[in-house]
Parts: sequence; C-alpha cells; structure tokens
Amino acid sequence: MGIRIGIFGYGNLGRGIESAIRQNSDLELAAVFTRRDPKTVKIRTEGVPVYHADSASEHKKDIDVMIMCGGSATDLPEQTPAMAKLFNVVDSFDTHARIPEHFENTDRVAKESGKVAIISVGWDPGMFSLNRLYAGVVLPDGKDYTFWGKGVSQGHSDAIRRIDGVVDAKQYTIPVEEALDAVRSGSRPELTTRQKHIRECFVVAKEGADLERIENEIKTMPNYFADYDTTVHFISKEELDRDHSGIPHGGFVIRTGKTGFEGEHDHVIEYSLKLDSNPEFTASVIVAYARAAARLNAKGESGCKTVLDIPPATLSAEPGEELRRRLL
Amino acid sequence: MGIRIGIFGYGNLGRGIESAIRQNSDLELAAVFTRRDPKTVKIRTEGVPVYHADSASEHKKDIDVMIMCGGSATDLPEQTPAMAKLFNVVDSFDTHARIPEHFENTDRVAKESGKVAIISVGWDPGMFSLNRLYAGVVLPDGKDYTFWGKGVSQGHSDAIRRIDGVVDAKQYTIPVEEALDAVRSGSRPELTTRQKHIRECFVVAKEGADLERIENEIKTMPNYFADYDTTVHFISKEELDRDHSGIPHGGFVIRTGKTGFEGEHDHVIEYSLKLDSNPEFTASVIVAYARAAARLNAKGESGCKTVLDIPPATLSAEPGEELRRRLL
Repeated sequence: MGIRIGIFGYGNLGRGIESAIRQNSDLELAAVFTRRDPKTVKIRTEGVPVYHADSASEHKKDIDVMIMCGGSATDLPEQTPAMAKLFNVVDSFDTHARIPEHFENTDRVAKESGKVAIISVGWDPGMFSLNRLYAGVVLPDGKDYTFWGKGVSQGHSDAIRRIDGVVDAKQYTIPVEEALDAVRSGSRPELTTRQKHIRECFVVAKEGADLERIENEIKTMPNYFADYDTTVHFISKEELDRDHSGIPHGGFVIRTGKTGFEGEHDHVIEYSLKLDSNPEFTASVIVAYARAAARLNAKGESGCKTVLDIPPATLSAEPGEELRRRLL
Repeated sequence: MGIRIGIFGYGNLGRGIESAIRQNSDLELAAVFTRRDPKTVKIRTEGVPVYHADSASEHKKDIDVMIMCGGSATDLPEQTPAMAKLFNVVDSFDTHARIPEHFENTDRVAKESGKVAIISVGWDPGMFSLNRLYAGVVLPDGKDYTFWGKGVSQGHSDAIRRIDGVVDAKQYTIPVEEALDAVRSGSRPELTTRQKHIRECFVVAKEGADLERIENEIKTMPNYFADYDTTVHFISKEELDRDHSGIPHGGFVIRTGKTGFEGEHDHVIEYSLKLDSNPEFTASVIVAYARAAARLNAKGESGCKTVLDIPPATLSAEPGEELRRRLL
C-alpha cells in the first residue's frame, strides 16, 4: 500500500496535487476535502471520495498526509495548525512576513499531536529558498539575487481587474535581461525595483471605456505598478482567452561570490525554473515533501519543518544505495 | 571556540580548504597533516602546526573534523576509512564506479568509531548530485542531462603531456551550445558523446617536433579524444603560462519534464556553475559539509553519509529561525 494522501481544498493547486500523485507510484489519493457541498465537487480520480472539510477528523485513520491547498491570506494560518492536530500535513504558505508566526503555531500543535508538518513548500518559498541556502553556505563572501518570471502574477492581474472599466486582465512579471547579465558578471550591482523587473499587462476594457484613464490608473498604482516600467496592451476578450489563459511562471536565483586568499576568484551559481504551469509545478514539489513527511513521521519525528530541514534523500522513493549509484 | 578543522594533504585542494576556512568565522584551522617532511611544507596560516600524516592519531583531541585532500585513485580509498576511525571526516571521492564500495568501507569504520563521515562532497559529485535528486523527485516524468565546462580537465591535459614531443598542455572541455538548447527545449533528445561536448587543446611542443603527428595522436586517442570533436592549438610556453594557468570549470544540470493529467505542461529546471577555480569552489563546498559533520556528530549521529543525506540547514552556522526569516 502506498502513502495515502488527502487533499484539503480543491482549486488549481488541489487539482495539481491530484495530477502529481499519478506520477508517483508509491503515493495514492485517499480523499478530497472541501468546504463546498461535496456533491458539487467533481474530481478526476475514480473511486476516491469527496468529503466535507468539517468531517476530516472522522478520517484520521485513512490519511497518512494531508496536503493543504487553501490560500495563504486567510485559509492556511487557520487550517494548517488545525489539521496538524490530526494528520501529517504539508502546505505552501507563502506570506513571507508571517512565516515565523505560522511556523510557531504549527510547530506547537504538531509536537503535541506527534505529527510532522512541512510548511512553505513550493518553488518560492521552496526550491528557491533551498538554492539560496546552498549557494550562501558555499560562497559566504557573495550576494544573491532573485528574479521572477516570465510569469503571471495573480495578485497584479486581480489589481487591474478591480479598475473601473476593466472586464478582464492578465499581468506578466518579466526579469530585465540587462539586470540578469549585470548580476552574472559578478559585479554585485545594487539594483532598484525598476531595474530588476518590468510588468506587461494585457487588458480587456468595457466598450467605450476611457483607455487612457485605465492605462494611467494601472501605471500609477502604488506598490503594484508605480515602481516599475509597465506596458499596457488593450486586447479583446477572445485574444485574452486564446493567448493568455495559461499560468506560466519561473525565475532565477543567482549568487556570485569570491574565493581565494585575496578573493581573487569569482564564481557564479545559477538556478532557474521555466514553468508552463505554476500550480502544477508547485504541486509536484509538495507531493515529494508529502512523501518525506510520512517517512519522517514513521521514524518518530514530529513538529514543524521547512524544506531547509528535510534530508534530500527522504524526498525520493528510491533506497539510498540506488540514489548513490545513480546520482552521485 | 569554533569547529576545529584538520587538513589531510596539502595540495591545491588543501590550500583551497585553508582559504575557505577563513571565510567562515565559526571554523578554525587546527593543523595540517602531510606525508612529506612537515618542515618542508609552508602553509599560509600563521601559528598553525604542520604534522606528519602518521602522527594523526596523536591529535585526536585537537580536531573536530578531518578534511581528506588526497586523490581519489589511490589515497582516499585507504585514507578516508583509516581517518574515520579517529575523526569525523569529509572527502571529495569522485571515482563514480567505486562510490558504493567506498561508502561501505567508510560506513563500517565510522559506525564502529561513532564518527560521522561525509564522502563525495564537491560539485560533481556534490551540488550536481543534489540538483539531480531535487529535480528528479519534482519532475518524475522527465529526463536530466549533465554538461561540464567550460573548464580544464586535468586528466585530459595529463594524457596530452604523455605524448612524445609535448612539453606542456591544457585541455578545455566545452559544452556544445546547440545541445544545451535542444535539452532546454524539452524535447528530451538522445545525445551522443560527440554532440554534448567539444575538446579544445593548447599544446606546447618541443622545438622541431612533428606537429601533425602530435595533433593526430591527440585526436585519435581512445576514450580521451577519439569520440569528440577536438581542436588543437600549438602555442608557446609563454602563452600557455600567461593565458592558461587558471583552473576554471563549471557545468550544467538540466532536467525537463511534464506535468498535468495529459502531460500537457512542460517545465525546465536548470542549475549551472561558472567557476574561476575548481579546487577553491570544491573546497568551499567541503567546509560547509565539515560544519554539518561536526554538528550531526554532536547530536549523536555516526556512519557514512553523502550530500543526499544531510539536512540543508545543518550546513549553515545561522540558527533555523534566522534561516527561515532570511531565505524562505
């Protein structure tokens, strides 16, 4: 029998988890939990039950790891500690400033319940965090940079949609090539927000809307756009649906640093992702950490952890010997 | 007091370790061990003793981690298990086919002595192995590729030097751009040896030597050059010393893979290194794992491990809270 996974929340991420489980023969989907009426939620895997979120405690014995697929703003701060009372859990909590608080809350509960909770799993936080750690310990005399994109920012797209006269919108965050090259040169440049990323917006406006006003409102919007060079394209709803329906993303973590008795040697460590589907890639990372959560708990561990704490080999279904033979 | 490091073998790698220790304030160089006459070995750090390798057992109490800086061919298979009887050890054993055997030999000794041994640390094996592991667990339906260079291959340079009429030589391994691009496209190409790398040789010949014969001997040398497109440049000793005295290296680990219920989304994970000094970078990786070896042993662990087994946070001198705040 494989590791039995529960999905808590069935949106883009939950569907990504369902799909990722199929690529891992040692994992099986045991149940989906939803706050909606379970009868209205159609999942893709035959024979797997959909339960109401409130009934999770009744399925304590059927789930080895519960994967939390709610949002970081209001869902996960409540749901992850609540579920860590009952299950090993993994979440993708990504509100940076609140991670310490979320860690503490989850750790307390998971230690009491004897479960393993792994929070903030995905690619950033997640794979990018790991790469910042590895690069930082290897090149202590150095500086690292993170660039995001090219990719869709859901938050920025939503901000445009709230403008009067806008029907729909998609915003792409794009790293500036010159900035990437300056970083790779090892010169450790100080880069402003504007120098690192540009923002490109595809906007569907209401018929007769004042396009100039909309463009101006976007470009001057504090926090979201005012600090960036922003381009705005008005397109039809058909074009938006045809050319901009995907959720691509990605980015770069680059660290440059010096070694040698006189710091005479330069080094560049670069990690990059180019993703067709942000939620499916995030889900793929999460299921690997779900495997680790189950295994660590089976070895007697408990409490809250992050990607920084997990021994890499624990993520793989293969035995250590095989990993050493194949990967070292 | 910091973690007290011993260096066992004082060549390029040993000097790199000495230099890397200076970049880490929680590490201190305690002693250097050599098989030469210690009086003939001048190190860069004042006040640190140089002892004969045979006297290592007398310094058991002064060293927290011994870093093994011998060669993989004959030194490390003997030295690493021998020193693991006395110390926590880290080595950079890189003879791929013999890693399982070296692991077993070292593991047996380290378990008996209650010490931690971390073998095959560096960038390949090492950081590249880690990236193959992480990328593989995240994209199980995928394929990974490793490219090396642009960088100096010591083995290939030595092979050229053994040809009659050759005074000195430096060989660069260079990845083929078209192959890198084909891999990044996600098409999962099958690439031959010739398609992945080219070999560029800078050769100093004896006066009056038959250059055509030398070039032909290089290009047709089995295993080393026959399977590659190889270019040979004859240059003067002055040019070689001026332009080719460094030991740069680097490379790429790229994995592409698919996600989605119909495998409809493509992803590219790419990790790359561009290194001015191969031994200094390798040394920088090793000292981070020396820290981990000391800490894991202090927590009661013992036995042989590889980079695949070490929790990432263990590599850093910073506390977990700080790492979460700064890196997640």
